[in-house]
Amino acid sequence: MPTISEKGRNMPESPIRKLVPFAEEAQRAGKKVLYLNIGQPDIASPKVAIDAVKNLNRKVIEYSHSAGFISYRNKLAEYYRSVGIDVNADEVLITTGGSEALIFGFLTCFNPGDEVIIPEPFYANYNGFANVAGIKVVPVTAKIENGFALPDVEAFEALITPRTKGIVICNPGNPTGYLYTKSELEQLKDIVSRHDLYLFADEVYREFCYDGAKPYSVMNLTGIEDNVVLIDSVSKRYSMCGARIGAMISRNKELMATALKFAQARLSPPTLAQIASEAALDTPNSYFEEVIDEYVERRNIMVDGLNNIDGVFCPKPKGAFYCVARFPVDSTEKFCQWLLQEFEHNGQTVMMAPASGFYATPGLGVDEARIAYVLNKDALRDAVECLEEALKIYPGRLQVANHVTQERTA
Amino acid sequence: MPTISEKGRNMPESPIRKLVPFAEEAQRAGKKVLYLNIGQPDIASPKVAIDAVKNLNRKVIEYSHSAGFISYRNKLAEYYRSVGIDVNADEVLITTGGSEALIFGFLTCFNPGDEVIIPEPFYANYNGFANVAGIKVVPVTAKIENGFALPDVEAFEALITPRTKGIVICNPGNPTGYLYTKSELEQLKDIVSRHDLYLFADEVYREFCYDGAKPYSVMNLTGIEDNVVLIDSVSKRYSMCGARIGAMISRNKELMATALKFAQARLSPPTLAQIASEAALDTPNSYFEEVIDEYVERRNIMVDGLNNIDGVFCPKPKGAFYCVARFPVDSTEKFCQWLLQEFEHNGQTVMMAPASGFYATPGLGVDEARIAYVLNKDALRDAVECLEEALKIYPGRLQVANHVTQERTA
Repeated sequence: MPTISEKGRNMPESPIRKLVPFAEEAQRAGKKVLYLNIGQPDIASPKVAIDAVKNLNRKVIEYSHSAGFISYRNKLAEYYRSVGIDVNADEVLITTGGSEALIFGFLTCFNPGDEVIIPEPFYANYNGFANVAGIKVVPVTAKIENGFALPDVEAFEALITPRTKGIVICNPGNPTGYLYTKSELEQLKDIVSRHDLYLFADEVYREFCYDGAKPYSVMNLTGIEDNVVLIDSVSKRYSMCGARIGAMISRNKELMATALKFAQARLSPPTLAQIASEAALDTPNSYFEEVIDEYVERRNIMVDGLNNIDGVFCPKPKGAFYCVARFPVDSTEKFCQWLLQEFEHNGQTVMMAPASGFYATPGLGVDEARIAYVLNKDALRDAVECLEEALKIYPGRLQVANHVTQERTA
Repeated sequence: MPTISEKGRNMPESPIRKLVPFAEEAQRAGKKVLYLNIGQPDIASPKVAIDAVKNLNRKVIEYSHSAGFISYRNKLAEYYRSVGIDVNADEVLITTGGSEALIFGFLTCFNPGDEVIIPEPFYANYNGFANVAGIKVVPVTAKIENGFALPDVEAFEALITPRTKGIVICNPGNPTGYLYTKSELEQLKDIVSRHDLYLFADEVYREFCYDGAKPYSVMNLTGIEDNVVLIDSVSKRYSMCGARIGAMISRNKELMATALKFAQARLSPPTLAQIASEAALDTPNSYFEEVIDEYVERRNIMVDGLNNIDGVFCPKPKGAFYCVARFPVDSTEKFCQWLLQEFEHNGQTVMMAPASGFYATPGLGVDEARIAYVLNKDALRDAVECLEEALKIYPGRLQVANHVTQERTA
């Protein structure tokens, strides 16, 4: 029997999905599982997008251009201009989800063995894409105590080696919900400029900013136009995760021409989903206003609820629909599994994603979990109540005093 | 400005699409271009598939399972059983087109620097996927004189090194249309078995076999179950190229579990297209009967027409909807460009894909072109007439005698 590749063996399993068998078991045992582990919103996709699919007026589901339908690219460029990002269709490559945009970007910019610095905790699949491209992820740690703000310049500089070729950020952030300020992004610009690095920014949660906060795009950092790659997706914006339509945007012409060669090899992004995504650009503003109001209320229920539980700490994020909370437990891996296997409250339990999978530094995040507040408000209230009750009886519960001491000496 | 990666620089441009600017120019000049360069059939997608999209009954375009909807995988396994390939849903991973299936397969099975042997001429994008995985394509040459039959065992054996890890075939073949016999496949089995190689078979044209020929799947080669990976796609079968739905099938459990990790990183294949593809499995047999009758007629018009032109030779393929023909010209690169730039007959001209891009051995295929007979019969008759007229006046036309002599001494 022939052997499996090294990359195959090194490919990480999804930390978001690895508790799934326990959740399935809990459901079989009759418990209602409140799924806070995955960023699959329950929000309806825009009617204009669904209608475009239902009114499909084609006899042949044909390839599109490898870079995506030109009508879609033009309209998407218009959308970017409307949010203050001045690009044209040539600077936009339509991809099969933000995932493919990251893979094309990594393959285009980095050689095997190159290093990219990523603030941790970070979206776990960056590890997978880095593995595909054969590059090394070098984490720079953001602290829960600071609400996961950007680590300071010195922390980045200390990690830079001759092999460092890029920095990857997610803004607003998954899993933290943290929204970088303009001054934090300018700090990144200085580092990028000083060492001539690529700066990848995953801005797929752009639309979800709260409390009056406005997102600032890396595309507006002047002087590093050839270094910047914007990653985007319709998945979260329009609650169309299953469309698998994303985009890679850059003003670096050589980079875009190279990425197009990778795109040509896979022929085209999905046609039906491009039709839906192009139509989605006509989604009325009222849709986002309602969705954002909804997420603010959900965030408040979840984050305020968590902070009211004795020993739990959760910074209040300004964006996306995730938060990372610290629990007074021995290990969130164990706690999350226990919640599914051993616990129920009024017939319900909660599924969260242990945060250790979002850190690259071993040992970090062992008492943290990522929560996606993608369920309705009543379900979120039930989830908070479940967690409060669970922490009263969880065998691995730590005393807060111990826990804080542990943290300080760590 | 940061540099582009080595893989990015090495990534081949599509030989199928590189004449596109000249075709666009020809169209602007008012010529009608008969596109025989790309495998985008004009055949309608099955009504059941289009209807499934139009009757979409979902409010949220959600992720599917990373391996694809289980309902689709079950039904697809049923389809395989109906064509004599005994697999279950666990042995089927739904991918974003056959392209992604090949990338996942290569990443799962091969390390950078590993070698795979591929009979040439072969589907040019295999080069791109090999480049992504960092593996080396080692061509074994099939000859137009033999109709592109499988090269003999000795030819394979001569190429095997300690780094050889696999063989990749396309059956029926793109670009040749050649259908391997059971005995050719058993010859491959012996080589695979002797050296414990992976055997990838791209069988996306399975449905398109002519003159009573039946395809024999590598999944039915006994004794090498753990070595075989089947690549499939709905693109050609249902004329749904733009769906971007394929599949990777293997009985090797470790291989499938590893491929699933790559699949998890990119979350899921496209949801809308899976709905269409699942419905397409209910396509009545009459659809295929009509389509196959149509392709046989098209093939006959094209291949017989070509062979009737003085100095042109084209083996008559038993499958797919391509053929590779030899032309009495200095270079098909030049001839194809000249057809677009300099020639017209009754206001029309022809676009073909120069075959050199389908060979990995430099210098081969310079007088061959791939033709996709994906246009209607009248258009194909016009195309043959165009080629006949063009060869009467093309400045780089060779005398047949010279040409044959050249070939014999080459």
